[in-house]
Amino acid sequence: MRMADLSAGTGVPVPTIKYYLREGLLSPGRPLGRNQAEYGSAHVKRLKLVRALADYGGLSISAIRELVDHMEDPGTAKTELLSVAQKTVTTHDDERSGEHVRQAERLVADLLARRGWDDTAGHQAARTMVGVLASLLELGLDDILRALDDYADAAETAAGVDLRVLGDVTDRERAVEVVVIGTLLGDTLLAAMRRLAQAHLSVETYRTTG
Amino acid sequence: MRMADLSAGTGVPVPTIKYYLREGLLSPGRPLGRNQAEYGSAHVKRLKLVRALADYGGLSISAIRELVDHMEDPGTAKTELLSVAQKTVTTHDDERSGEHVRQAERLVADLLARRGWDDTAGHQAARTMVGVLASLLELGLDDILRALDDYADAAETAAGVDLRVLGDVTDRERAVEVVVIGTLLGDTLLAAMRRLAQAHLSVETYRTTG
Repeated sequence: MRMADLSAGTGVPVPTIKYYLREGLLSPGRPLGRNQAEYGSAHVKRLKLVRALADYGGLSISAIRELVDHMEDPGTAKTELLSVAQKTVTTHDDERSGEHVRQAERLVADLLARRGWDDTAGHQAARTMVGVLASLLELGLDDILRALDDYADAAETAAGVDLRVLGDVTDRERAVEVVVIGTLLGDTLLAAMRRLAQAHLSVETYRTTG
Repeated sequence: MRMADLSAGTGVPVPTIKYYLREGLLSPGRPLGRNQAEYGSAHVKRLKLVRALADYGGLSISAIRELVDHMEDPGTAKTELLSVAQKTVTTHDDERSGEHVRQAERLVADLLARRGWDDTAGHQAARTMVGVLASLLELGLDDILRALDDYADAAETAAGVDLRVLGDVTDRERAVEVVVIGTLLGDTLLAAMRRLAQAHLSVETYRTTG
Protein backbone atom coordinates (compact mmCIF):
# COMPACT_ATOMS: atom_id res chain seq x y z
CA MET A 1 0.00 0.00 0.00
CA ARG A 2 1.03 3.65 -0.45
CA MET A 3 1.56 6.06 2.46
CA ALA A 4 -1.95 7.52 2.03
CA ASP A 5 -3.45 4.04 2.53
CA LEU A 6 -1.16 3.36 5.50
CA SER A 7 -2.48 6.59 7.03
CA ALA A 8 -6.12 5.74 6.26
CA GLY A 9 -5.74 2.22 7.63
CA THR A 10 -4.19 3.27 10.94
CA GLY A 11 -5.69 6.73 11.47
CA VAL A 12 -2.17 8.18 11.84
CA PRO A 13 -1.81 11.43 9.83
CA VAL A 14 0.71 11.44 6.94
CA PRO A 15 2.95 14.14 8.54
CA THR A 16 3.18 11.99 11.70
CA ILE A 17 4.15 8.93 9.61
CA LYS A 18 6.86 10.99 7.89
CA TYR A 19 8.12 12.13 11.29
CA TYR A 20 8.30 8.52 12.55
CA LEU A 21 10.20 7.55 9.36
CA ARG A 22 12.72 10.36 9.90
CA GLU A 23 13.16 9.36 13.55
CA GLY A 24 13.73 5.71 12.64
CA LEU A 25 10.62 4.44 14.49
CA LEU A 26 9.30 2.99 11.24
CA SER A 27 11.46 1.26 8.65
CA PRO A 28 11.38 2.75 5.11
CA GLY A 29 8.96 1.24 2.60
CA ARG A 30 10.12 -0.54 -0.55
CA PRO A 31 11.01 2.24 -3.04
CA LEU A 32 8.67 2.46 -6.04
CA GLY A 33 10.11 5.54 -7.63
CA ARG A 34 11.57 8.90 -6.81
CA ASN A 35 8.95 9.92 -4.25
CA GLN A 36 6.91 6.80 -3.61
CA ALA A 37 7.27 3.67 -1.53
CA GLU A 38 5.26 0.56 -0.83
CA TYR A 39 4.31 -0.33 2.76
CA GLY A 40 3.09 -3.66 4.11
CA SER A 41 1.31 -5.21 7.06
CA ALA A 42 4.48 -5.04 9.21
CA HIS A 43 4.35 -1.24 8.83
CA VAL A 44 0.70 -1.17 9.90
CA LYS A 45 1.52 -3.21 13.00
CA ARG A 46 4.57 -1.16 13.94
CA LEU A 47 2.70 2.10 13.42
CA LYS A 48 -0.11 1.06 15.79
CA LEU A 49 2.47 0.02 18.37
CA VAL A 50 4.43 3.29 18.15
CA ARG A 51 1.26 5.34 18.40
CA ALA A 52 0.03 3.45 21.46
CA LEU A 53 3.39 3.94 23.20
CA ALA A 54 3.59 7.62 22.20
CA ASP A 55 0.01 8.38 23.28
CA TYR A 56 -0.30 6.41 26.50
CA GLY A 57 3.12 4.95 27.31
CA GLY A 58 4.61 8.19 28.60
CA LEU A 59 7.87 7.65 26.70
CA SER A 60 10.03 9.99 24.63
CA ILE A 61 10.58 9.26 20.93
CA SER A 62 14.13 8.06 21.58
CA ALA A 63 12.95 5.77 24.39
CA ILE A 64 10.30 4.30 22.07
CA ARG A 65 12.92 3.69 19.35
CA GLU A 66 15.15 1.84 21.80
CA LEU A 67 12.22 -0.17 23.14
CA VAL A 68 10.78 -1.32 19.80
CA ASP A 69 14.26 -2.26 18.54
CA HIS A 70 14.69 -4.38 21.65
CA MET A 71 11.23 -5.92 21.32
CA GLU A 72 11.97 -7.11 17.80
CA ASP A 73 15.28 -8.71 18.76
CA PRO A 74 14.59 -12.48 18.66
CA GLY A 75 17.52 -13.02 21.04
CA THR A 76 15.48 -11.80 24.00
CA ALA A 77 14.43 -14.78 26.15
CA LYS A 78 11.02 -14.88 27.83
CA THR A 79 12.66 -14.56 31.24
CA GLU A 80 14.40 -11.39 30.04
CA LEU A 81 11.21 -9.72 28.82
CA LEU A 82 10.31 -8.31 32.19
CA SER A 83 13.69 -6.64 32.46
CA VAL A 84 12.89 -4.74 29.24
CA ALA A 85 9.68 -3.48 30.82
CA GLN A 86 11.50 -2.82 34.12
CA LYS A 87 13.58 -0.13 32.46
CA THR A 88 10.57 1.87 31.37
CA VAL A 89 10.02 3.57 34.71
CA THR A 90 10.74 7.29 35.16
CA THR A 91 14.26 7.85 36.47
CA HIS A 92 16.35 10.92 37.04
CA ASP A 93 20.08 10.93 37.23
CA ASP A 94 19.99 12.73 40.46
CA GLU A 95 22.93 14.60 41.85
CA ARG A 96 20.97 15.10 45.02
CA SER A 97 22.53 13.75 48.14
CA GLY A 98 22.25 14.54 51.79
CA GLU A 99 20.08 13.39 54.66
CA HIS A 100 16.81 13.00 52.72
CA VAL A 101 18.38 10.73 50.12
CA ARG A 102 20.10 8.59 52.78
CA GLN A 103 16.82 8.36 54.72
CA ALA A 104 14.96 7.38 51.51
CA GLU A 105 17.56 4.69 50.78
CA ARG A 106 17.00 3.21 54.24
CA LEU A 107 13.19 3.28 53.76
CA VAL A 108 13.51 1.46 50.42
CA ALA A 109 15.95 -1.13 51.79
CA ASP A 110 13.62 -1.80 54.74
CA LEU A 111 10.57 -2.12 52.48
CA LEU A 112 12.34 -4.54 50.13
CA ALA A 113 13.40 -6.65 53.11
CA ARG A 114 9.94 -6.61 54.71
CA ARG A 115 8.29 -7.78 51.50
CA GLY A 116 10.98 -10.28 50.54
CA TRP A 117 11.80 -8.23 47.42
CA ASP A 118 15.53 -8.11 48.30
CA ASP A 119 16.42 -9.61 44.91
CA THR A 120 15.33 -6.36 43.26
CA ALA A 121 17.56 -3.94 45.22
CA GLY A 122 19.76 -3.13 42.19
CA HIS A 123 16.86 -2.40 39.82
CA GLN A 124 16.27 0.95 38.21
CA ALA A 125 12.81 1.00 39.79
CA ALA A 126 14.42 0.84 43.26
CA ARG A 127 16.40 3.98 42.38
CA THR A 128 13.14 5.60 41.23
CA MET A 129 11.59 4.76 44.58
CA VAL A 130 14.51 6.40 46.38
CA GLY A 131 14.03 9.54 44.27
CA VAL A 132 10.28 9.73 44.93
CA LEU A 133 10.66 9.09 48.67
CA ALA A 134 13.45 11.66 48.96
CA SER A 135 11.14 14.21 47.27
CA LEU A 136 8.31 13.36 49.69
CA LEU A 137 10.67 13.70 52.66
CA GLU A 138 11.95 17.03 51.33
CA LEU A 139 8.38 18.31 51.01
CA GLY A 140 7.54 17.09 54.52
CA LEU A 141 4.80 14.72 53.28
CA ASP A 142 5.42 11.98 55.83
CA ASP A 143 1.70 11.10 55.77
CA ILE A 144 2.20 9.39 52.43
CA LEU A 145 5.34 7.59 53.58
CA ARG A 146 3.53 6.08 56.55
CA ALA A 147 1.15 4.37 54.07
CA LEU A 148 4.02 2.92 52.01
CA ASP A 149 3.24 -0.72 52.84
CA ASP A 150 -0.40 -0.27 51.87
CA TYR A 151 0.62 1.20 48.51
CA ALA A 152 3.01 -1.74 48.10
CA ASP A 153 0.02 -4.07 48.58
CA ALA A 154 -1.77 -2.34 45.68
CA ALA A 155 1.36 -2.57 43.50
CA GLU A 156 1.81 -6.25 44.31
CA THR A 157 -1.82 -6.96 43.41
CA ALA A 158 -1.25 -5.34 40.00
CA ALA A 159 2.03 -7.23 39.49
CA GLY A 160 0.33 -10.52 40.37
CA VAL A 161 -2.26 -9.85 37.64
CA ASP A 162 0.57 -8.96 35.20
CA LEU A 163 2.31 -12.27 35.80
CA ARG A 164 -0.91 -14.24 35.53
CA VAL A 165 -1.78 -12.58 32.20
CA LEU A 166 1.76 -13.23 30.92
CA GLY A 167 1.63 -16.86 32.04
CA ASP A 168 -1.32 -17.50 29.73
CA VAL A 169 0.56 -16.29 26.63
CA THR A 170 2.47 -19.02 24.80
CA ASP A 171 3.51 -17.22 21.62
CA ARG A 172 6.85 -15.45 22.14
CA GLU A 173 6.13 -12.39 20.02
CA ARG A 174 2.82 -11.83 21.76
CA ALA A 175 4.50 -12.31 25.16
CA VAL A 176 6.91 -9.42 24.42
CA GLU A 177 3.98 -7.21 23.48
CA VAL A 178 1.89 -8.20 26.48
CA VAL A 179 4.63 -7.56 29.00
CA VAL A 180 6.03 -4.31 27.57
CA ILE A 181 2.77 -2.71 26.45
CA GLY A 182 0.88 -4.12 29.42
CA THR A 183 3.40 -2.59 31.79
CA LEU A 184 3.54 0.81 30.08
CA LEU A 185 -0.09 1.31 29.06
CA GLY A 186 -1.00 -0.45 32.32
CA ASP A 187 0.62 2.41 34.27
CA THR A 188 -1.70 4.88 32.57
CA LEU A 189 -4.68 2.54 32.95
CA LEU A 190 -4.01 2.08 36.68
CA ALA A 191 -3.48 5.84 37.13
CA ALA A 192 -6.82 6.53 35.42
CA MET A 193 -8.70 3.91 37.45
CA ARG A 194 -7.08 5.12 40.68
CA ARG A 195 -8.49 8.61 39.99
CA LEU A 196 -11.95 7.24 39.18
CA ALA A 197 -11.92 5.18 42.38
CA GLN A 198 -10.68 8.23 44.35
CA ALA A 199 -13.52 10.34 42.97
CA HIS A 200 -16.09 7.67 43.67
CA LEU A 201 -14.84 6.97 47.20
CA SER A 202 -14.62 10.69 48.02
CA VAL A 203 -18.25 11.22 46.96
CA GLU A 204 -19.20 8.37 49.29
CA THR A 205 -17.03 9.66 52.13
CA TYR A 206 -18.19 13.27 51.98
CA ARG A 207 -21.83 12.25 51.47
CA THR A 208 -21.70 10.25 54.72
CA THR A 209 -19.63 12.55 56.93
CA GLY A 210 -20.80 15.86 55.44
CA MET B 1 18.64 35.18 50.72
CA ARG B 2 20.32 35.67 47.31
CA MET B 3 19.82 33.30 44.38
CA ALA B 4 23.11 31.50 45.14
CA ASP B 5 21.84 30.67 48.64
CA LEU B 6 18.44 29.60 47.27
CA SER B 7 20.31 27.22 44.97
CA ALA B 8 22.54 25.89 47.75
CA GLY B 9 19.58 25.41 50.10
CA THR B 10 17.47 23.45 47.63
CA GLY B 11 20.09 21.76 45.46
CA VAL B 12 18.49 23.27 42.34
CA PRO B 13 21.16 24.73 39.99
CA VAL B 14 21.06 28.51 39.36
CA PRO B 15 20.32 28.13 35.59
CA THR B 16 17.30 25.94 36.44
CA ILE B 17 16.05 28.55 38.94
CA LYS B 18 16.40 31.25 36.25
CA TYR B 19 14.44 29.05 33.85
CA TYR B 20 11.64 28.54 36.39
CA LEU B 21 11.53 32.34 36.95
CA ARG B 22 11.24 32.98 33.19
CA GLU B 23 8.48 30.36 32.90
CA GLY B 24 6.54 31.87 35.80
CA LEU B 25 6.84 28.78 38.01
CA LEU B 26 8.58 30.85 40.68
CA SER B 27 7.58 34.39 41.58
CA PRO B 28 10.31 37.06 41.27
CA GLY B 29 12.30 37.93 44.39
CA ARG B 30 12.24 41.38 46.00
CA PRO B 31 14.53 43.60 43.85
CA LEU B 32 17.70 44.68 45.63
CA GLY B 33 19.37 46.46 42.76
CA ARG B 34 19.92 46.18 39.05
CA ASN B 35 20.81 42.49 38.99
CA GLN B 36 20.00 41.18 42.43
CA ALA B 37 16.92 40.06 44.29
CA GLU B 38 16.08 38.74 47.71
CA TYR B 39 14.31 35.37 48.06
CA GLY B 40 12.50 33.97 51.10
CA SER B 41 11.21 30.75 52.59
CA ALA B 42 8.16 30.77 50.25
CA HIS B 43 10.58 30.54 47.32
CA VAL B 44 12.39 27.60 48.92
CA LYS B 45 9.09 25.76 49.42
CA ARG B 46 7.81 26.47 45.90
CA LEU B 47 11.12 25.46 44.34
CA LYS B 48 11.08 22.07 46.10
CA LEU B 49 7.50 21.53 44.96
CA VAL B 50 8.21 22.42 41.32
CA ARG B 51 11.27 20.20 41.27
CA ALA B 52 9.38 17.21 42.70
CA LEU B 53 6.60 17.64 40.12
CA ALA B 54 9.06 18.12 37.25
CA ASP B 55 11.20 15.13 38.25
CA TYR B 56 8.60 12.56 39.25
CA GLY B 57 5.17 14.01 38.43
CA GLY B 58 5.38 13.39 34.69
CA LEU B 59 4.00 16.85 33.89
CA SER B 60 5.03 19.48 31.35
CA ILE B 61 6.21 22.90 32.54
CA SER B 62 2.92 24.53 31.51
CA ALA B 63 0.91 21.84 33.33
CA ILE B 64 2.99 22.42 36.48
CA ARG B 65 2.40 26.18 36.26
CA GLU B 66 -1.35 25.67 36.01
CA LEU B 67 -1.33 23.17 38.85
CA VAL B 68 0.69 25.21 41.35
CA ASP B 69 -1.40 28.31 40.62
CA HIS B 70 -4.51 26.28 41.37
CA MET B 71 -2.97 24.78 44.53
CA GLU B 72 -2.29 28.24 45.96
CA ASP B 73 -5.81 29.51 45.31
CA PRO B 74 -7.44 29.64 48.77
CA GLY B 75 -10.86 29.40 47.10
CA THR B 76 -10.41 25.69 46.47
CA ALA B 77 -12.55 23.71 48.93
CA LYS B 78 -11.31 20.43 50.39
CA THR B 79 -13.97 18.53 48.45
CA GLU B 80 -12.66 20.10 45.23
CA LEU B 81 -9.06 19.12 45.84
CA LEU B 82 -9.45 15.70 44.34
CA SER B 83 -10.79 17.18 41.13
CA VAL B 84 -7.53 19.12 40.78
CA ALA B 85 -5.61 15.85 41.06
CA GLN B 86 -8.12 14.11 38.78
CA LYS B 87 -7.06 16.30 35.89
CA THR B 88 -3.44 15.24 36.09
CA VAL B 89 -3.87 12.00 34.17
CA THR B 90 -2.49 11.60 30.64
CA THR B 91 -5.11 12.43 28.02
CA HIS B 92 -5.00 12.77 24.28
CA ASP B 93 -7.46 14.74 22.25
CA ASP B 94 -8.08 11.83 20.06
CA GLU B 95 -9.64 12.13 16.66
CA ARG B 96 -9.78 8.37 16.52
CA SER B 97 -13.18 6.85 16.08
CA GLY B 98 -14.46 3.59 14.72
CA GLU B 99 -15.23 0.17 16.10
CA HIS B 100 -12.33 -0.04 18.60
CA VAL B 101 -13.25 3.24 20.26
CA ARG B 102 -16.94 2.30 20.46
CA GLN B 103 -16.00 -1.10 21.90
CA ALA B 104 -13.70 0.59 24.45
CA GLU B 105 -16.49 2.98 25.44
CA ARG B 106 -18.77 0.02 26.12
CA LEU B 107 -16.06 -1.74 28.18
CA VAL B 108 -15.53 1.38 30.30
CA ALA B 109 -19.28 1.97 30.80
CA ASP B 110 -19.71 -1.67 31.86
CA LEU B 111 -16.78 -1.50 34.27
CA LEU B 112 -18.04 1.72 35.88
CA ALA B 113 -21.49 0.14 36.31
CA ARG B 114 -20.08 -3.13 37.73
CA ARG B 115 -18.01 -1.27 40.33
CA GLY B 116 -20.64 1.33 41.16
CA TRP B 117 -18.36 4.10 39.82
CA ASP B 118 -21.13 5.48 37.55
CA ASP B 119 -20.76 8.92 39.12
CA THR B 120 -17.36 9.24 37.44
CA ALA B 121 -18.43 8.60 33.82
CA GLY B 122 -17.78 12.21 32.71
CA HIS B 123 -14.30 12.42 34.23
CA GLN B 124 -11.17 13.00 32.19
CA ALA B 125 -9.77 9.74 33.60
CA ALA B 126 -12.71 7.84 32.06
CA ARG B 127 -11.72 9.28 28.65
CA THR B 128 -8.14 8.20 29.33
CA MET B 129 -9.39 4.67 30.04
CA VAL B 130 -11.26 4.66 26.71
CA GLY B 131 -8.08 5.72 24.90
CA VAL B 132 -5.94 3.05 26.56
CA LEU B 133 -8.50 0.28 26.01
CA ALA B 134 -8.97 1.31 22.35
CA SER B 135 -5.18 1.06 21.90
CA LEU B 136 -5.12 -2.40 23.49
CA LEU B 137 -8.00 -3.54 21.27
CA GLU B 138 -6.25 -2.12 18.21
CA LEU B 139 -3.08 -4.04 19.10
CA GLY B 140 -5.06 -7.23 19.69
CA LEU B 141 -4.01 -7.47 23.36
CA ASP B 142 -7.28 -8.87 24.66
CA ASP B 143 -5.40 -10.82 27.35
CA ILE B 144 -4.92 -7.59 29.29
CA LEU B 145 -8.54 -6.54 28.83
CA ARG B 146 -9.78 -9.80 30.31
CA ALA B 147 -7.94 -8.91 33.54
CA LEU B 148 -9.50 -5.43 33.72
CA ASP B 149 -11.49 -6.09 36.89
CA ASP B 150 -8.42 -7.41 38.68
CA TYR B 151 -6.47 -4.28 37.74
CA ALA B 152 -9.44 -2.23 38.98
CA ASP B 153 -9.10 -4.02 42.34
CA ALA B 154 -5.47 -2.87 42.56
CA ALA B 155 -6.44 0.70 41.62
CA GLU B 156 -9.22 0.74 44.21
CA THR B 157 -6.83 -0.48 46.91
CA ALA B 158 -4.50 2.43 46.11
CA ALA B 159 -7.39 4.93 46.05
CA GLY B 160 -8.61 3.67 49.42
CA VAL B 161 -5.16 4.35 50.88
CA ASP B 162 -5.17 7.83 49.25
CA LEU B 163 -8.46 8.73 50.90
CA ARG B 164 -7.36 7.37 54.28
CA VAL B 165 -4.14 9.39 54.16
CA LEU B 166 -6.08 12.52 53.15
CA GLY B 167 -8.65 11.97 55.90
CA ASP B 168 -5.91 12.27 58.53
CA VAL B 169 -4.79 15.71 57.31
CA THR B 170 -6.60 18.60 58.97
CA ASP B 171 -4.55 21.58 57.73
CA ARG B 172 -5.98 22.84 54.41
CA GLU B 173 -2.68 23.77 52.79
CA ARG B 174 -1.17 20.42 53.65
CA ALA B 175 -4.29 18.66 52.35
CA VAL B 176 -3.81 20.25 48.89
CA GLU B 177 -0.21 19.11 48.86
CA VAL B 178 -1.01 15.59 50.04
CA VAL B 179 -3.72 15.02 47.46
CA VAL B 180 -2.03 16.56 44.43
CA ILE B 181 1.54 15.45 45.11
CA GLY B 182 0.39 12.13 46.53
CA THR B 183 -1.60 11.43 43.39
CA LEU B 184 1.12 12.49 40.95
CA LEU B 185 4.24 11.20 42.69
CA GLY B 186 2.13 8.25 43.82
CA ASP B 187 1.69 7.23 40.17
CA THR B 188 5.46 6.99 39.78
CA LEU B 189 5.84 5.30 43.16
CA LEU B 190 3.19 2.69 42.30
CA ALA B 191 4.73 2.15 38.85
CA ALA B 192 8.16 1.58 40.43
CA MET B 193 6.81 -0.82 43.08
CA ARG B 194 4.76 -2.70 40.46
CA ARG B 195 7.98 -3.34 38.52
CA LEU B 196 9.85 -4.47 41.65
CA ALA B 197 6.99 -6.82 42.54
CA GLN B 198 6.88 -8.11 38.94
CA ALA B 199 10.61 -8.83 39.02
CA HIS B 200 10.37 -10.53 42.40
CA LEU B 201 7.33 -12.63 41.46
CA SER B 202 8.87 -13.62 38.11
CA VAL B 203 12.03 -14.84 39.82
CA GLU B 204 9.83 -16.96 42.09
CA THR B 205 7.69 -18.21 39.20
CA TYR B 206 10.55 -19.18 36.90
CA ARG B 207 12.56 -20.67 39.76
CA THR B 208 9.66 -23.04 40.55
CA THR B 209 8.49 -23.95 37.06
CA GLY B 210 11.88 -23.81 35.34
